[in-house]
Amino acid sequence: MTITETECETTCIDVHSQLIYEVANAAEFQLQIAVRPLSQQSIESESVKIYHNDQQIDDSQWSEVAIPATENRCYRFRAEPGQWRIDYDAAVTKISQLQAGSHCLSPITSLPAEALPFLNPSRYCESDRFLQLAENQFGGLKRDDSLVEALENMVFNRTSYTMGSSNAQTTATDTYLSTEGVCRDFAHLLIVLCRALRIPARYTSGYLVELQPPDFHAAVEVFIGDHWQIYDATRLASLGGFVPIAIGLDAADVAFASFSGKVNMLNCTISAVARTSA
Amino acid sequence: MTITETECETTCIDVHSQLIYEVANAAEFQLQIAVRPLSQQSIESESVKIYHNDQQIDDSQWSEVAIPATENRCYRFRAEPGQWRIDYDAAVTKISQLQAGSHCLSPITSLPAEALPFLNPSRYCESDRFLQLAENQFGGLKRDDSLVEALENMVFNRTSYTMGSSNAQTTATDTYLSTEGVCRDFAHLLIVLCRALRIPARYTSGYLVELQPPDFHAAVEVFIGDHWQIYDATRLASLGGFVPIAIGLDAADVAFASFSGKVNMLNCTISAVARTSA
Amino acid sequence: MTITETECETTCIDVHSQLIYEVANAAEFQLQIAVRPLSQQSIESESVKIYHNDQQIDDSQWSEVAIPATENRCYRFRAEPGQWRIDYDAAVTKISQLQAGSHCLSPITSLPAEALPFLNPSRYCESDRFLQLAENQFGGLKRDDSLVEALENMVFNRTSYTMGSSNAQTTATDTYLSTEGVCRDFAHLLIVLCRALRIPARYTSGYLVELQPPDFHAAVEVFIGDHWQIYDATRLASLGGFVPIAIGLDAADVAFASFSGKVNMLNCTISAVARTSA
Amino acid sequence: MTITETECETTCIDVHSQLIYEVANAAEFQLQIAVRPLSQQSIESESVKIYHNDQQIDDSQWSEVAIPATENRCYRFRAEPGQWRIDYDAAVTKISQLQAGSHCLSPITSLPAEALPFLNPSRYCESDRFLQLAENQFGGLKRDDSLVEALENMVFNRTSYTMGSSNAQTTATDTYLSTEGVCRDFAHLLIVLCRALRIPARYTSGYLVELQPPDFHAAVEVFIGDHWQIYDATRLASLGGFVPIAIGLDAADVAFASFSGKVNMLNCTISAVARTSA
Repeated sequence: MTITETECETTCIDVHSQLIYEVANAAEFQLQIAVRPLSQQSIESESVKIYHNDQQIDDSQWSEVAIPATENRCYRFRAEPGQWRIDYDAAVTKISQLQAGSHCLSPITSLPAEALPFLNPSRYCESDRFLQLAENQFGGLKRDDSLVEALENMVFNRTSYTMGSSNAQTTATDTYLSTEGVCRDFAHLLIVLCRALRIPARYTSGYLVELQPPDFHAAVEVFIGDHWQIYDATRLASLGGFVPIAIGLDAADVAFASFSGKVNMLNCTISAVARTSA
Repeated sequence: MTITETECETTCIDVHSQLIYEVANAAEFQLQIAVRPLSQQSIESESVKIYHNDQQIDDSQWSEVAIPATENRCYRFRAEPGQWRIDYDAAVTKISQLQAGSHCLSPITSLPAEALPFLNPSRYCESDRFLQLAENQFGGLKRDDSLVEALENMVFNRTSYTMGSSNAQTTATDTYLSTEGVCRDFAHLLIVLCRALRIPARYTSGYLVELQPPDFHAAVEVFIGDHWQIYDATRLASLGGFVPIAIGLDAADVAFASFSGKVNMLNCTISAVARTSA
Repeated sequence: MTITETECETTCIDVHSQLIYEVANAAEFQLQIAVRPLSQQSIESESVKIYHNDQQIDDSQWSEVAIPATENRCYRFRAEPGQWRIDYDAAVTKISQLQAGSHCLSPITSLPAEALPFLNPSRYCESDRFLQLAENQFGGLKRDDSLVEALENMVFNRTSYTMGSSNAQTTATDTYLSTEGVCRDFAHLLIVLCRALRIPARYTSGYLVELQPPDFHAAVEVFIGDHWQIYDATRLASLGGFVPIAIGLDAADVAFASFSGKVNMLNCTISAVARTSA
Repeated sequence: MTITETECETTCIDVHSQLIYEVANAAEFQLQIAVRPLSQQSIESESVKIYHNDQQIDDSQWSEVAIPATENRCYRFRAEPGQWRIDYDAAVTKISQLQAGSHCLSPITSLPAEALPFLNPSRYCESDRFLQLAENQFGGLKRDDSLVEALENMVFNRTSYTMGSSNAQTTATDTYLSTEGVCRDFAHLLIVLCRALRIPARYTSGYLVELQPPDFHAAVEVFIGDHWQIYDATRLASLGGFVPIAIGLDAADVAFASFSGKVNMLNCTISAVARTSA
């Protein structure tokens, strides 16, 4: 399912996440929950508050860092034992513009350099194992966005969305066999098929309006013509309401939280609401 | 084995690679064979010549592109059917400087942003599967460069260098079980252990003086203190003679050649020779 | 941990299992819950009752079959939709005899034919992947029961017993890496090491007195000298209280319940109690 | 492809295998090269000769053992260092009879006990990973031999026979993804699909008339109605010329040669020739 866009439509979306953890021994936190700054996505306001045992910590005690290759924003801090709560809020204006220009898939020799790493296999997207299979099934098709739609259709049709059917180590191979998964697995399977056919594809995490139950979501960006086009083979909600957080090769790069030390998640509350414009 | 360096020593190394392919149907080539530009490695002269059926093609028919995140240089061209030959030559001056500064391993919250992606698991380095194992065996050690040396020792001691014992899909897990591999596999296993212990580690391909038989080589760069330190658990030759080509998460990112289409390698000749200085 | 046996001691053990299922569409059931008839284990009394929607079905509606190679007993029936309950009870007298005879491991050419299949790799015990690793670590040891004890020690020492840490597809390779598992995984890892060293080893399910929480248990039988000796690397309870149900290559062969159709387990209650003798 | 049989036709086939090994340190050999005694396959004459450094060893120095569950015949001997040669010859009369009786697939509750183990997943046939995929694609078909033909068709159509495309650790999952393999891999893939659909299926090695290049071959026996029916998804030659050696869960059970110790195969010559009847 691709975004169907009307010319230059504007949507205002409020996103919120609250994460609560129990830390046994001192631990280091990295959080990728902040909205990604994009030309089509302007951050009107944003707030992050971090609490240790219900007391807000000083801004000097945590930092924000942006990863150069992806511009993913990452909050980092050292957490002493106790309960930790992170509250993130942002108001985002999405500007959807009709994607003009070519819908052809570029030959490898014409791809921009920044797209090349997204042709390679990655931890959960072993595209080197799908080369012949993808070629057999899709190699004869015209190389434009209809090919990507055919891949998205296949993933949607052969995969059941089943909560709890996969875990953190599940790869695209596993999903291809089990024929079930969650958003992460649908994304990995679509990515693997794209890359096996020499189409750059990357993983994007985000907030999604109207997702039920509310949670972080995952989708796929495919390089078509001269831009990254977003796809979501789960078809759970309109991508007009998708607010990207972080991009990467696959789920390994965009974990919303990673730690050293023994950390136990107590709660995770996510929301994304579209405001009716003033 | 780390580089043992004396203060500011200079070495001149001539590297050469010749690749010959048979192309059945029109194919697209990407080659990562050019020496990486680095502060410690100055490229004195460089030449790349590409031949189609023994006739050199015009420079307008191929291009060079540098991948932003890594600065890996990549030659690209479209190859019509026939025999293709690529000749690459470079004269490099390596400046080895005594690495001063800290030898401690940074906590995650102090790592520079560019190092963060190299903490994540990747296609051939499934570090998420090694977390507990690495913690059990090495979690109690002091977190400085002696920890990385302990890991390098372990990889060297438990792995036999055996030509033909692995293939393009072999992962660090496979190597950990089989206890044998080639340079690629030694590198993956060392990387997996570093990342499992929250130490950034990346894969680097390169030319290596005195490697027998001559071939492309692979080593590991580990982020220690404030710089990337090179390690080679194969211990096949002195790293003073290593001339880096490309870096990446693992072998998936630095393939010396990748193609679309049916391409058959006919020959591959590599050499790296240290010149006695004038 | 091997059974420590005194001469010809007799233990009476009452075992019980109750399984309750919800069947949506007509399904076929196979249950391996009945105690295995053995020379050292005499079944004093036994009862199996099967209920469909709380009404006991007639004995003509289910059957018992014994698998020739293993003598595993299997209850089979076709289940119409509704709730199904199976109650199994048995009173067993175990006769523990001091194992006399050789404690040497037989060379392959002297093994009895019935032991040979248990040298081969199986679904969850990929011993062909552990050959070199086992040889490196244990190849120099004397080939008698002290070698098996060394393997059992290794499995016990490097593996944490962690509920929920594995699933039905977890293999010995997974357990070797994750260093955690449940009884099934401890058994698979011990089996894999035995077979990699050319020692026949098989999986046995059973009831176990004093297991907390009560559940079906899994252990390993290793062919030593001229008999199958039982080992349990979990060391959760004395093997004097182990009442074997079924043997096989690994967990794939001894599932306590397998089905066609959509079947949902509602409850599973197990007990094994040693009677103080009269 | 099933055997197409005319009523009670008789074929005489001469089979031969010669294996030559270099043994560095004393090793133990197990060979499964002898024709399997079957009602439809009478062994008219048979000879096995074993040579150490070109000198035939005495019959007392090797033995034959039959594995109870499968009746596979196995030659065993201890081999001192040096060159070893094994010559096996047999003349076999195959009696092909029209398979009368049911062609329906039995429900699990009606299967004979001996067929039950061949419903379980095994080392190279991870049928537990294919349950949903097989159900989605074939679950709606009539459960008779036309279902098995549909499976055989699928394996034949999606898999390329490619020498050297797999190795000893390749599983059915690997073959399903790579879409290529040799006879072993075609057999594993057909077995996996049968078992995933609750149809007993086993692996059989054998000699095959007209196989090019001559080699040991692998096929599949599927339990249909009341007998094991043979299938070969490679379709390389008529199964009328197939002379079974050994059966098992998969290739792990029927290796034509297994060893302890360092053994190097120098040569392997196989032939199977149909005699024009007198």
